[in-house]
Amino acid sequence: MVAGISRARRKDSTLQFALFGDEAIVREELAKHDGLTQAVTVYHAPESIAATEKPSQAIRRAKTTSMGMAINAVKDGQADAAVSGGNTGALMAMSKLALRTLLGIDRPALAALLPTLGDQDCVMLDLGANTECDAQNLVQFAVMGSAYARTVLGVQKPRVKLLNIGTEELKGTDELKEAAGLLREADYLPFKFDGFTEGDQLSRGNVDVVVTDGFSGNIALKTAEGTARFVTDLLRRAFKSSLRSKAGFALSQPALNLLKVHLDPNNHNGAVFLGLNGLVVKSHGGANPKGVANAIGVAASMVRNDIIRKIGDDLDNFRAHAFNEAAQ
Amino acid sequence: MVAGISRARRKDSTLQFALFGDEAIVREELAKHDGLTQAVTVYHAPESIAATEKPSQAIRRAKTTSMGMAINAVKDGQADAAVSGGNTGALMAMSKLALRTLLGIDRPALAALLPTLGDQDCVMLDLGANTECDAQNLVQFAVMGSAYARTVLGVQKPRVKLLNIGTEELKGTDELKEAAGLLREADYLPFKFDGFTEGDQLSRGNVDVVVTDGFSGNIALKTAEGTARFVTDLLRRAFKSSLRSKAGFALSQPALNLLKVHLDPNNHNGAVFLGLNGLVVKSHGGANPKGVANAIGVAASMVRNDIIRKIGDDLDNFRAHAFNEAAQ
Repeated sequence: MVAGISRARRKDSTLQFALFGDEAIVREELAKHDGLTQAVTVYHAPESIAATEKPSQAIRRAKTTSMGMAINAVKDGQADAAVSGGNTGALMAMSKLALRTLLGIDRPALAALLPTLGDQDCVMLDLGANTECDAQNLVQFAVMGSAYARTVLGVQKPRVKLLNIGTEELKGTDELKEAAGLLREADYLPFKFDGFTEGDQLSRGNVDVVVTDGFSGNIALKTAEGTARFVTDLLRRAFKSSLRSKAGFALSQPALNLLKVHLDPNNHNGAVFLGLNGLVVKSHGGANPKGVANAIGVAASMVRNDIIRKIGDDLDNFRAHAFNEAAQ
Repeated sequence: MVAGISRARRKDSTLQFALFGDEAIVREELAKHDGLTQAVTVYHAPESIAATEKPSQAIRRAKTTSMGMAINAVKDGQADAAVSGGNTGALMAMSKLALRTLLGIDRPALAALLPTLGDQDCVMLDLGANTECDAQNLVQFAVMGSAYARTVLGVQKPRVKLLNIGTEELKGTDELKEAAGLLREADYLPFKFDGFTEGDQLSRGNVDVVVTDGFSGNIALKTAEGTARFVTDLLRRAFKSSLRSKAGFALSQPALNLLKVHLDPNNHNGAVFLGLNGLVVKSHGGANPKGVANAIGVAASMVRNDIIRKIGDDLDNFRAHAFNEAAQ
C-alpha cells in the first residue's frame, strides 16, 4: 500500500494521504520512500479486520480498526475518499453503515472498469455487492454507472446495456425485463439505453456501461479474469514448446509486452462502491504498487469529477419524472 | 451439416444417419460426398423452425418440421440421438414435450465441455435451459453432470463443485447454500462434492463438473468465449504491429497453431440436453463441419455409454436414500 501511495504521489503531487494502520509498521515503510512523509498523516489503528471476518462482526469494531477508521475519516470530512485492500464484505458493510446510501438508492453497488477492444474501457456494475437485485436496483445501477462513464471516462452520453442470456426482449428474468421497460422510458436521463447484451460482447467495445445483478456480475468478471489467464498460460506453453517458438517469442516480445500491459489486472484495479454519501474504493488484495496507485487514481478522479453530486442530480431527475408520471 | 456428417462418418464408419430436411437440398449436398448415401436415410420435412420463432409456436409444428421430426425419431426409437443446429429454445421445448423428463428430474439442463489447463475438459451445466433454479434442480444437475463425466470423460469419481461468488459456506444465494448441504450429505453417490468454486477457477483443471443455474452458466460460458476471442484478437494486433513481431509470429506459428486448436470452439461443439428419456444434442448454429462432427461424436459417445440409464440409476439411488432418511 505504501509503495502504491508513493507511486500515485509521483504521478500527482497534489494528493494528500491519511494512513490508518499499525503506526510503527507504517512509519517503517514510509521511511523507505523519499519525501513521502510530508504528504502523509499516520493514524494509529490498534486493530485490523481479518480476511475471514464476517461483515456482521466487523461492523462492531469500526472505531478501533484501520478499515473502520478510514471510512469514518470520509464520513467526518477528513478525507475525500477511502481506499482499502481488505475484506470486501466488511468494507461494504462498514461503508454502508457509516456513510448511508444516497437518497433514491436502495442498494449501493461495486463498479469497475473492464478492458475492451475499443478506444475506451467499459464500466460494469454490480460486481458482487448484491446477490439478488430487483428492477429498481438495476435502474439505479444504470444511473450510477452512467455517471461513472460520464465523469471518469468522459463519455457524454454513455451506451447502457443490461447483461442477459440473449438479446431478444423476451429473454431473461422478470427483473431484467421490468428494468429494461423502465430504462427504455427514462430517455430524459443522460445516457442511451441500448437493450440487452450477452457475456461474449463485454469486451467488444460496443457498450459503455454494463448493468447486472451482483451474482452474475461477479461470475462474469471472474470468468473473464480466469479465461484471460487461461489463454495467456496456453500461450506461454506454446512459446516454450520448441526452440523455434522460443526464438519467435524473443522476436515478438516488445509487441507482446503491450498485450501484457493491456491484460494486467493492476491496470484495472480499483472497484468503486457507488451509491453512498462518500467514496470508497476497493483495491484487489493481491494488487502490486502499480495496482494500488491505479485504485488511488480512480478515487482521485471521482472526487475531482464530483461523481456523488452527479449521481444525486440524476436520481433527483429520475424521481421528479416518476412523480410527474404518477400524478398524471 | 452434411459435410459434418461426412467427417463424422470417416472417423467412425459404424454410424448411421437419418436426415430430416428439404429432401432435394439434402440429396444435392449428399451427392457431394462419396459413399455417404449408404449411411444416410433422408426424410423429407416440408417445414423448418426459424431462428426467431418462439418455443410456444414451434411446439405446434412438431410433426411437419425437420426439428420436430428428428426429435420424434428419437421418441419412436428410430434414432438413438438427435443432433440439431437450430433454434435452441425451440429444440428444448420440443424435446421436453416429446421425450418427457426422467423420473426424478424436475428440469432438464444443457451441458457442455469446457477446455481446461488440465489433462481433461470439465463438464458444465446448466448453460441456459433454466433461468432460475432451486436447490433440488441443482442437485439433479450434479447427478446428471457427474454421469456425463463418468461415461464420456471416463472419470471414475468426478469432483463436483457449485459455481458461486465465493468459496466460503456463507456465500451466495439460499438455493446454492441449500444445494451444498444436500450434496454434502449425498456421499453415497458416485461423485465427490467439493464445495463452491468461482468463475476464475473454471479452466484451472481442478474440477470435473461445474453446476450452476442456467442464467449464471450462460453468462459464464459466453464471457469465457468472448474473453478468449478478446485475448486472441489482442494477440493478433500485437503480432501485426511491427515487421519484427510479424517475423516472430512466422517463427512461432506451428506452436501457436496448437493454441488455436485448443481454443477453437468447434472442438468443444455439442451441448447435450440432459434429463430426458432420449438424447438431444445442440450443435452451435455457426459450427463448421469439424464442429458438427464433434457434436455427432458427443451424441454417439453418450449412446454407447448408456448415459441415460446411468443417470436413472443414480437418481433411483438418490431417491431411495432420501426415502430411507425420511422414514427414520
